[in-house]
Amino acid sequence: MNKIVTFGEIMLRLSTERHLRFSQAKTFAASYGGGEFNVAVSLANYGIPVEFVTRLPENEIGACALKEMRKFNVDSKNVIYGGDRLGIYYLETGAGTRGSNVVYDRANSSMATIEKGSIDWESVLKDATWFHWSGITPAISESAAQECLEALKVAHKLGITISSDLNYRSKLWQYGKEPKQVMPELLKYSNIILGDIDTALFMLGKDKVSPNYQDEKSLPVLYDQIFKSCPNLKIVATTLRYSVSASHQRIGGILYDGKVVYNADVKEVTPVVDRVGSGDAFMGGLIYGLVNDVNNKQRALNIAVAACCLKHTISGDYNLITLNEIEKLLSGDSSGKVSR
Amino acid sequence: MNKIVTFGEIMLRLSTERHLRFSQAKTFAASYGGGEFNVAVSLANYGIPVEFVTRLPENEIGACALKEMRKFNVDSKNVIYGGDRLGIYYLETGAGTRGSNVVYDRANSSMATIEKGSIDWESVLKDATWFHWSGITPAISESAAQECLEALKVAHKLGITISSDLNYRSKLWQYGKEPKQVMPELLKYSNIILGDIDTALFMLGKDKVSPNYQDEKSLPVLYDQIFKSCPNLKIVATTLRYSVSASHQRIGGILYDGKVVYNADVKEVTPVVDRVGSGDAFMGGLIYGLVNDVNNKQRALNIAVAACCLKHTISGDYNLITLNEIEKLLSGDSSGKVSR
Amino acid sequence: MNKIVTFGEIMLRLSTERHLRFSQAKTFAASYGGGEFNVAVSLANYGIPVEFVTRLPENEIGACALKEMRKFNVDSKNVIYGGDRLGIYYLETGAGTRGSNVVYDRANSSMATIEKGSIDWESVLKDATWFHWSGITPAISESAAQECLEALKVAHKLGITISSDLNYRSKLWQYGKEPKQVMPELLKYSNIILGDIDTALFMLGKDKVSPNYQDEKSLPVLYDQIFKSCPNLKIVATTLRYSVSASHQRIGGILYDGKVVYNADVKEVTPVVDRVGSGDAFMGGLIYGLVNDVNNKQRALNIAVAACCLKHTISGDYNLITLNEIEKLLSGDSSGKVSR
Amino acid sequence: MNKIVTFGEIMLRLSTERHLRFSQAKTFAASYGGGEFNVAVSLANYGIPVEFVTRLPENEIGACALKEMRKFNVDSKNVIYGGDRLGIYYLETGAGTRGSNVVYDRANSSMATIEKGSIDWESVLKDATWFHWSGITPAISESAAQECLEALKVAHKLGITISSDLNYRSKLWQYGKEPKQVMPELLKYSNIILGDIDTALFMLGKDKVSPNYQDEKSLPVLYDQIFKSCPNLKIVATTLRYSVSASHQRIGGILYDGKVVYNADVKEVTPVVDRVGSGDAFMGGLIYGLVNDVNNKQRALNIAVAACCLKHTISGDYNLITLNEIEKLLSGDSSGKVSR
Amino acid sequence: MNKIVTFGEIMLRLSTERHLRFSQAKTFAASYGGGEFNVAVSLANYGIPVEFVTRLPENEIGACALKEMRKFNVDSKNVIYGGDRLGIYYLETGAGTRGSNVVYDRANSSMATIEKGSIDWESVLKDATWFHWSGITPAISESAAQECLEALKVAHKLGITISSDLNYRSKLWQYGKEPKQVMPELLKYSNIILGDIDTALFMLGKDKVSPNYQDEKSLPVLYDQIFKSCPNLKIVATTLRYSVSASHQRIGGILYDGKVVYNADVKEVTPVVDRVGSGDAFMGGLIYGLVNDVNNKQRALNIAVAACCLKHTISGDYNLITLNEIEKLLSGDSSGKVSR
Amino acid sequence: MNKIVTFGEIMLRLSTERHLRFSQAKTFAASYGGGEFNVAVSLANYGIPVEFVTRLPENEIGACALKEMRKFNVDSKNVIYGGDRLGIYYLETGAGTRGSNVVYDRANSSMATIEKGSIDWESVLKDATWFHWSGITPAISESAAQECLEALKVAHKLGITISSDLNYRSKLWQYGKEPKQVMPELLKYSNIILGDIDTALFMLGKDKVSPNYQDEKSLPVLYDQIFKSCPNLKIVATTLRYSVSASHQRIGGILYDGKVVYNADVKEVTPVVDRVGSGDAFMGGLIYGLVNDVNNKQRALNIAVAACCLKHTISGDYNLITLNEIEKLLSGDSSGKVSR
Repeated sequence: MNKIVTFGEIMLRLSTERHLRFSQAKTFAASYGGGEFNVAVSLANYGIPVEFVTRLPENEIGACALKEMRKFNVDSKNVIYGGDRLGIYYLETGAGTRGSNVVYDRANSSMATIEKGSIDWESVLKDATWFHWSGITPAISESAAQECLEALKVAHKLGITISSDLNYRSKLWQYGKEPKQVMPELLKYSNIILGDIDTALFMLGKDKVSPNYQDEKSLPVLYDQIFKSCPNLKIVATTLRYSVSASHQRIGGILYDGKVVYNADVKEVTPVVDRVGSGDAFMGGLIYGLVNDVNNKQRALNIAVAACCLKHTISGDYNLITLNEIEKLLSGDSSGKVSR
Repeated sequence: MNKIVTFGEIMLRLSTERHLRFSQAKTFAASYGGGEFNVAVSLANYGIPVEFVTRLPENEIGACALKEMRKFNVDSKNVIYGGDRLGIYYLETGAGTRGSNVVYDRANSSMATIEKGSIDWESVLKDATWFHWSGITPAISESAAQECLEALKVAHKLGITISSDLNYRSKLWQYGKEPKQVMPELLKYSNIILGDIDTALFMLGKDKVSPNYQDEKSLPVLYDQIFKSCPNLKIVATTLRYSVSASHQRIGGILYDGKVVYNADVKEVTPVVDRVGSGDAFMGGLIYGLVNDVNNKQRALNIAVAACCLKHTISGDYNLITLNEIEKLLSGDSSGKVSR
Repeated sequence: MNKIVTFGEIMLRLSTERHLRFSQAKTFAASYGGGEFNVAVSLANYGIPVEFVTRLPENEIGACALKEMRKFNVDSKNVIYGGDRLGIYYLETGAGTRGSNVVYDRANSSMATIEKGSIDWESVLKDATWFHWSGITPAISESAAQECLEALKVAHKLGITISSDLNYRSKLWQYGKEPKQVMPELLKYSNIILGDIDTALFMLGKDKVSPNYQDEKSLPVLYDQIFKSCPNLKIVATTLRYSVSASHQRIGGILYDGKVVYNADVKEVTPVVDRVGSGDAFMGGLIYGLVNDVNNKQRALNIAVAACCLKHTISGDYNLITLNEIEKLLSGDSSGKVSR
Repeated sequence: MNKIVTFGEIMLRLSTERHLRFSQAKTFAASYGGGEFNVAVSLANYGIPVEFVTRLPENEIGACALKEMRKFNVDSKNVIYGGDRLGIYYLETGAGTRGSNVVYDRANSSMATIEKGSIDWESVLKDATWFHWSGITPAISESAAQECLEALKVAHKLGITISSDLNYRSKLWQYGKEPKQVMPELLKYSNIILGDIDTALFMLGKDKVSPNYQDEKSLPVLYDQIFKSCPNLKIVATTLRYSVSASHQRIGGILYDGKVVYNADVKEVTPVVDRVGSGDAFMGGLIYGLVNDVNNKQRALNIAVAACCLKHTISGDYNLITLNEIEKLLSGDSSGKVSR
Repeated sequence: MNKIVTFGEIMLRLSTERHLRFSQAKTFAASYGGGEFNVAVSLANYGIPVEFVTRLPENEIGACALKEMRKFNVDSKNVIYGGDRLGIYYLETGAGTRGSNVVYDRANSSMATIEKGSIDWESVLKDATWFHWSGITPAISESAAQECLEALKVAHKLGITISSDLNYRSKLWQYGKEPKQVMPELLKYSNIILGDIDTALFMLGKDKVSPNYQDEKSLPVLYDQIFKSCPNLKIVATTLRYSVSASHQRIGGILYDGKVVYNADVKEVTPVVDRVGSGDAFMGGLIYGLVNDVNNKQRALNIAVAACCLKHTISGDYNLITLNEIEKLLSGDSSGKVSR
Repeated sequence: MNKIVTFGEIMLRLSTERHLRFSQAKTFAASYGGGEFNVAVSLANYGIPVEFVTRLPENEIGACALKEMRKFNVDSKNVIYGGDRLGIYYLETGAGTRGSNVVYDRANSSMATIEKGSIDWESVLKDATWFHWSGITPAISESAAQECLEALKVAHKLGITISSDLNYRSKLWQYGKEPKQVMPELLKYSNIILGDIDTALFMLGKDKVSPNYQDEKSLPVLYDQIFKSCPNLKIVATTLRYSVSASHQRIGGILYDGKVVYNADVKEVTPVVDRVGSGDAFMGGLIYGLVNDVNNKQRALNIAVAACCLKHTISGDYNLITLNEIEKLLSGDSSGKVSR
């Protein structure tokens, strides 16, 4: 079995509808999501066996999150239980020149208060071929960072491919450590990193640079600094996002494998139904592409960009797009014709 | 009285709201529609006496469809009853690069199981001046095709104008006959055909051609093949649709009367609220235009294109646009200003 | 205290949702609004003490309007009570080439039937530094026009800054007087007028002109006609609006202070969530800008244009935009990025 | 043809949902209704040809009311147009010990401002066998009362059965006349009156009495006072309503034909989904019963009570109950079993 | 593993909300259900491993049903795919004296057109200890009846406990066979039958009797007729339902094991949120009780009745009640106190 | 001025609609509430100047709570800001035998992390005549308990009437202290205590007793134990609640003033729309009654019981009932008639 394991937090997402401001809302749409879970749903949709590991509270709201995992065919058998609450994020969806607004309420969640050593990673990962995590988990608490390290060590020992999404959020990292104190040790196990060059160097404690993603000549020099810090690294990839407005994005992507800089064409994304989770959709597409043909990096990147673009048309955190829809877009058909 | 009769199937339409995927929907918006009924509603809105003939099941769902006809002032006095079910179609509305998705569940509907000869067309059409049908009806079952032929023979005998929308749907035609075995006999009564040249020739069993609608010189040659097979034909018209994305269409139109090629300017349609039924809106506009001034074909075409464009701003299958709104757009005002 | 007082009518707004036509609606979204109240809410959002004076019916619907004032921190202590009904306007929100549609039902409202002299303006305005009214109030009834005049006289006597939004609506002015019979006497107290040159001259009973807002040379000549009729006038400003479609607007602005013509850059506004009240948002921004720095007219105009643009992304009549969001847009960031 | 004509006002009804108070509502459910129209819908549901005569404003809201008439198969061919607005009533639905709350906003409606003589009653009633009106119409304005009298004179002249629902509402009658100045002249044409004895005598200008509807001996004496004032009277009937709470009613009925007092068993009605219009449902049932068998007054009364009870389970003003459901309840089956 | 397998059809359920009639509905609540699936969900909620076997169409609607199985932790690994459509039932929820109304649209569903032999029952049942089916499956088509027989033969051979819910629906059985021609052969494998005596004897082709469930003396005689026809029978149980109204039910139960008649106290059920599936909730409770303690039949019956009662408070087909809630009700606490 | 001050926590309430279970909900109704705030809203509705003191987070969700205070005319001028989050409670509304279910997520709220001494009570209370608090505040954190004590000392010093609702919730009190260690010191300042005898004695560290509220002879003996511990006590009152089911309550009340036992008649409450906050409605009614006539304790108790009963018909935490509605119920009219 070709099982992929992702590890992180799943939250309750409370979003206003029809572009309402928080102060106008009498109802919140309730859904569930979180970076690493979103990646898991993408993969499950593409038909890949996938498991999500997290810690849930033993209450009705945690039970709802568990049902969501099951609904979307994400294995939950190694989920652990404990702690007091499911993390929450509030989302007010913008439009045009008004950006979306996120209010986090995820402190003291069951995942943030995970106790080090509470997951038996040897057992969890014994059938896995791929492990995915992101920079959010080490940002929420020290024990979560430690559990992440534990997982990475075991995954590395078992020879499992490790992918990392940097996912830097300045509002997190509140427990007294800075990214550069924590991330280098975690990132050194990575085979694949998703994130832009700046963020990677920042997290690795390096000096700030000014990457020009249009200049394929200068990029390898910058990327090589990341490769030097991460001895297992094979691929760094980034979504290239140009925000015309909250309702109009232009999405491309770039991938470097230590030798070649791959570029994907920029696509128009308008209107934007929901952009939250579009980075996770890129990651899901990239993993899918590499799992299916590790040597065709251009195609993996193209799939990642197409998945990211299509995600913007889906409400909620995760990418409910089919492989057929990705193939159609890759074939150049962005016409959005009615299928009937 | 200047009554127009349309004949076909009315279905229950179950659509997800706010671009949700089927798997996200906890509710379906329930409305009613079908190509020939949609044309009838357009005409009723324009103040033309119109009647819709169909077969409905004698249950509560059929009764809802009947109330819908009444609400929109479409005469239902010759509707017949029987069979087991109202046909259904599920609609998932796309956005941007994700197209809308239709799942048909219309097999064995009351209309599909209509028994030949169950409608007294002499009586139905005795006060009519126009009869409209489409290629969907002969596609759903052999008996429906036969009933269609019956209607056409009577309409022709009574000297009524006959308009036909080709409406080719490859998923239909499942009962063992191909279009070319059925359609030529039906189309030969047509005075007006709506459809592109390819589809017309395909249905008439002719060879495939490659029409260039921008080239007004080559078009008459292609159109003449259709005119040759349809001895009563006076007009062929087509919507010209350029899909930028599911949310952005560019709509034009072309009309040929055996002598002159008429063109309507292409209009931008963005955003698209609902594009289902926009072809029927074109048809409704064309009929209205011809009924009002049969000699002003350019104006009839312009009305058809304007109606089609405006339909994209309306939720549901049919075109709830007023003549005033069409006139405003025809006058060049596409500004969408608030009327107050 | 730096209190601003606005005076006018607050109405119940009944709008269809998701671009539905009136005939499709089974529910109306119920909110509240009116030009001068909308300005008050803008100012309250910007942290300025503001009070709204109006007349409400003593029934449950009037009580809802009162709760709305309180919710948005608009002082209601001088609201008076009486009359039979809260005015209503129905709104059908358009899209693309289909414009929004407003049906007024505000005749005989409590505000329209206000009795002259029923408000003690000396008391109301004694702590105020600014009084704002619009051309809607004198348009709804003779007694409302008289009460407006009363307020203006007192405000003028007390040396309070007076701003006036011309807000011409041809469907109003049904009580037997024309604008030119009423408005000149009211406008002569104005220090600031919002409205285009045509409308101003029309209301002042002057000849029609053809202003070219792109030509900064000819503008002062036209503006000077307004200044001549309004001896207290310091500033005339206008929103410049280019309607591409109901879903796409281009918004700029112009301001003249008797000496200099100020221009604000035109901004793209797409999509339009709700354009009703965007003129009031401009007014609110202008007042805020002038209150904060009366000498920086360019900045006041820029704020007004930014507020107007951002309003188009908000459902409902009033502008629930923060100063931070305005500053972000003024700084050139129209990217609509997620704030998280 | 056995056409019944009803005459009165149709209003827009704006109701809060799920027992919300007005101040909690962000949406109003929009439906249409009014006493005499509600009776028409009942009759249409029972398969009786029925026409509703009213005056509608020529705007989009009036057009919605017209579509509602059509949907429910009520003929609207003699509706006249003019005036400014459709009347409104706001409804807050109570529960338990909290009663429902109605706020009227119907002054100056198109119906209230009807001009005397604007309906050609000779033409309207020439095919009718029954005319129904209620005490609401003469209560809203003098001209409406006059138009009512006009209709009654013509109906009487043509020998049409006339039914009258007293429908006394103290909040109406604001135009300077009291019921006793207007109603006696109108009621004298009545063949059938619906209303309790008190109200009837009050409207006829008689002394107050204390009817005991349980005492079949004293009732004829009281009823005879009504018969004396109304020379054409054949039947007086009343709903007997015992309100346990807003959610629990007990409904009976009584009918007197000048000779015999008929009683219908009291039925439990709990829960109450919507009680507005239940009196009109009684009236509709009574008319239906008498139209079908004028001699079986007991059965007509039983149908009226059953229809009234079942109406309480239907949202909205009018009674969407089938004859089958009435028959089932009349047969003693109040079990509410699932029909499948 | 103690796996239970249930076999049958899962349908899309389209229900009106808030007691609306079909003709009032603009949306349908979309959920999924069917007798045997409902039993499976009950058991999954109680923590018992359970699998549902059915045939689904390979379209988006079938995919939704599959996601529903997963969400509620019902194993779907032996579901087969094919056919054209998911069966539908429309539900209009009644209140008080108006019963709920079901319109079936399930003919030609994927399950009805299942081909005999398409399920490998030896494989499906090899780990199972219990097999549950109902009389609906043999009622929908001949091939479904045959597949049912196939399953029963294998289950019997493997020594698995077999439970049968008679579930007689007169509207089904349309394929040319009567229950008595089909059911005796199927029921003879039953160890447990749920259904009343009348229905059982009717399906077994016996004479009609008049059971008095209050008379525990006469019951064994009647039950023995069933036992005689079903050589493997151990238990017959029935829900006893007294319908006061659609909103008020009184629920008891009876169980006979060939020797003793067990009775459960009648409980008041008011209000009824949704009664569809309450019989399946009884069945789920009974199976759970017997699986946990096969010898304590009184307790199993009590659990079944409590589960059935509590189901009436849940929207949708299946019983989302916890064991704790059942225990609370069994302990005599029907107070519905807030748990906080 | 007769200002009342209440002090406590306001939370976001997320409730499922239409009796849905948490796992069925795709939306949560968002409202705001909390015991002491609910009391404040009651009083504001009755026209009494009232202020609520709490601590709110400086984010968008805190701003929504603030707007809610304003909307319902509760003064917020002494609200302080800080901390990370607004507390939440999730509510699943039961029906019949299924009780409602509350999941608390209020740990680490801004109110729970209030710092001792952060409110200037001398200033807050200088214009007040009444101070109300409840046992929830000292239960959430030690600093909240300390701030409560601070307030009580100042209130006592200023001679302000102090009312206390015991509001014992076993799930709170998690910070290491038991009620009996904290509450006696707080309760000793009370003039009025709301709560049953058991709870009062438990919180005061006394032995458990078995009060019989029907026995007015034994009650004074039990009450006197409370009076002994609380030297300032004048009144103890209790809601008497008999839960027939989640949808049917029977509500009475009892009040003891050290001399006389007052009883209010038990009223039927069915159906229950929302019972959360009904105890706070009792408290609000009691305070209102005593503020208006401190000597008429019977009437104050009656008002409290009526307010409590009527609250059950209102969605959301607080009691949006008018004085008129209370008077109507007190006058014996529980008929729930339509007011029109």
